[in-house]
Amino acid sequence: MVSRSPEVQTAIPKGVRVLLPEETAKRRYIMAKTLSVFRRWGFQEVVTPTFEYLDVLSVGAGEDQQEKIFKFVDRQTGQLLALRSDLTPQVARMVATSLRHRPLPLRLAYAATVFRYQEPQAGRQREFFQIGVELIGLEQPEADAEMIAMAVESLKELGLGYFQIDVGQVEFFRGLMDAVELGPEVRRKVISAVRRKDASELELLFQAVPGDDRLKECLIALPGLYGGKEVLAKAEGMAFNQRAREALANLRQVYEILAFYGLSDYLIIDLGETYGFEYHSGVVFEAFTKALGYPLSGGGRYDDLIGRFGYPCPATGFAFDLERLLWALEAERVLPAYKGADFLIIDFNPDKRQALRLARLLREKGYSVARDIIKRDLPGSLAYARDASIGRAIVLGTAGCKKDELILKDLLSDREEIHSIEGFSQKVSSGELRWPT
Amino acid sequence: MVSRSPEVQTAIPKGVRVLLPEETAKRRYIMAKTLSVFRRWGFQEVVTPTFEYLDVLSVGAGEDQQEKIFKFVDRQTGQLLALRSDLTPQVARMVATSLRHRPLPLRLAYAATVFRYQEPQAGRQREFFQIGVELIGLEQPEADAEMIAMAVESLKELGLGYFQIDVGQVEFFRGLMDAVELGPEVRRKVISAVRRKDASELELLFQAVPGDDRLKECLIALPGLYGGKEVLAKAEGMAFNQRAREALANLRQVYEILAFYGLSDYLIIDLGETYGFEYHSGVVFEAFTKALGYPLSGGGRYDDLIGRFGYPCPATGFAFDLERLLWALEAERVLPAYKGADFLIIDFNPDKRQALRLARLLREKGYSVARDIIKRDLPGSLAYARDASIGRAIVLGTAGCKKDELILKDLLSDREEIHSIEGFSQKVSSGELRWPT
Repeated sequence: MVSRSPEVQTAIPKGVRVLLPEETAKRRYIMAKTLSVFRRWGFQEVVTPTFEYLDVLSVGAGEDQQEKIFKFVDRQTGQLLALRSDLTPQVARMVATSLRHRPLPLRLAYAATVFRYQEPQAGRQREFFQIGVELIGLEQPEADAEMIAMAVESLKELGLGYFQIDVGQVEFFRGLMDAVELGPEVRRKVISAVRRKDASELELLFQAVPGDDRLKECLIALPGLYGGKEVLAKAEGMAFNQRAREALANLRQVYEILAFYGLSDYLIIDLGETYGFEYHSGVVFEAFTKALGYPLSGGGRYDDLIGRFGYPCPATGFAFDLERLLWALEAERVLPAYKGADFLIIDFNPDKRQALRLARLLREKGYSVARDIIKRDLPGSLAYARDASIGRAIVLGTAGCKKDELILKDLLSDREEIHSIEGFSQKVSSGELRWPT
Repeated sequence: MVSRSPEVQTAIPKGVRVLLPEETAKRRYIMAKTLSVFRRWGFQEVVTPTFEYLDVLSVGAGEDQQEKIFKFVDRQTGQLLALRSDLTPQVARMVATSLRHRPLPLRLAYAATVFRYQEPQAGRQREFFQIGVELIGLEQPEADAEMIAMAVESLKELGLGYFQIDVGQVEFFRGLMDAVELGPEVRRKVISAVRRKDASELELLFQAVPGDDRLKECLIALPGLYGGKEVLAKAEGMAFNQRAREALANLRQVYEILAFYGLSDYLIIDLGETYGFEYHSGVVFEAFTKALGYPLSGGGRYDDLIGRFGYPCPATGFAFDLERLLWALEAERVLPAYKGADFLIIDFNPDKRQALRLARLLREKGYSVARDIIKRDLPGSLAYARDASIGRAIVLGTAGCKKDELILKDLLSDREEIHSIEGFSQKVSSGELRWPT
């Protein structure tokens, strides 16, 4: 077939992607593995709408997050709609409405794309895929530990060799901030500097602020509260008020449960960790791997969010970014190779019955079978099969075999066998066909 | 936890839905079954963007379909974007660009939501789910037959007891229309009347039109060309020109291949079938079931669409409407019952190690296991498990058993057994645990 100039543009908008079969298969593999871990921990999948009233998506989102939301007007109702930018508020609304009469806890999972105006970078497009869970109705540190343990389990299941989980407690930082008086402008700058772990910027900021020198020193030291279990002890001396002390005690409990799970090697305590949406209210965490400079997942406690929909209820959760997981797994080369169909049936007989019967039989046994409908010579069909990553070819009605025979050809090794059609069918029926594995 | 008035609205926009775990599980089941059929026929899943340039989605869409597209402006680029209203143009573009250098045929599948402004009715919301395939690069009637055979296979695999496939050929009707001269207004009315199978309206319309009486009679008789194989013979006498004759011959070939597949019992020939987008160009078909007045799936040949993106290439495809499939299966009560987690571990021991070990072991064996972290009495925990459709409870550290024992409770039959923890663990490890099936 000849090309010609397209009548219409063929471009795709900035920040969205088309996924070809090979790319889709990788993502399906990651999704299936992750959702299977979620399922085994007792989580049940739910689905939320792709668009929502803007108000719902804005709940608990900071100003910068709100700016990233895709908005549009409903032509039929005139209402302001928005593309889903985060699943957690949607699940919170679901809990506060449709699920509010169910006994707690609720263990909910999702796999969905979200949309944010952002420069395509750091493995993230403007439409990107999240796979996450929400554990609703538990205020116990065991619930926070369950989230972190599931994140670890998922990454192990995916075969990731090296990763760590940075665990923080947003209330510790908020406690310290309560103890010092800051104008809104300085406050913003402090939060930003802590996020960037910029101790010298913090030092400059606090020079200009009156107040307790020891407290200020602690805030400046915050980015350094990063490491193993010893960080918890170091932070004891900085827990200036009740809020910070409670946060630290809570973080210690979660750490101890995880140590008990045998997971302490994966944990980094990070009290300068301010990750998260404004709705986060306790232990928060992110998963990192060596190969990438940005987190594979993020999550944490959000005890005040569901209440804003009228049903006060503690909760915690986390989500993986599918694309980043993919990059991390590709960097470690642990993704399985792409496979097309198991068989291509190449049939030169005018009577198609044998080929159809074989295709049906193989499909009944769970094999994937494409039939070569196009007319071409055998080398042409085999080249097609190889290009489509098809594992084996079954050739009927060719010069190399008799009428009641078929050629079974392994397209990787080029090894071939001649079988009687009858005998081959019996092998398939009995489940004996294992060639090649 | 007490309720309070929500600070924010909890409503969801018109025409979109929240799916709770039970509802999601049903849809996941249908998707998995259908995609598994597609996979076994050698189709590979692809993913397209949720939003696109409007031009791409408008290609081959009629005026009424274009009006249904959700449009919005990209705040960053000022370009006009649109939510995906149909997957086929997106796949066509993918074939004409990213996939154009691959040998044909391409067998592509997808499962995705699409968006259309429409009154929520007939099982369809404004956001709804489609599961479909596209078979690219084959002009042979065998390709059309493959699509119809796959639709039948999918519906059988889902357990639907009664259904039929209405098969038409849009070129037959177009051929007849070529042979008669109609103004654009009358033409539109004729198409609409044929679509509604309104023979008396057709009679009225053609009274006012000059031309060959026999031809007009044929057009009026078109809605009656509906039934078994005999319709093909009946239509022979109406095939006035080359276009109509070729269409009929093509339809006959497809019918014969399907009869050869053993599927003729499912087929209804419908030459008044004008289903489809303007891009359809040959055999088209829809699946119907008794319980619903609208089709479960639709599809057909579209040989001119990919060319509009610069790569002329024949193609055919079809898609199921997930929600309608669900309704049909519910009407026949053939969907499996909802199941929550396999096990709830209820642990009254202060030392959690035994419970954690058991949970890990069961999960390694593929069971789904929720742990009851909340503190409540045994009846409370069992009531929770039942409400969450959890199959079995494992109780540790309760009065009814010793320290090294557990109670295994079937929550459906209320039958319970006491096991030693050690013995039970061995049963799980060895794969011997089959209770209850």
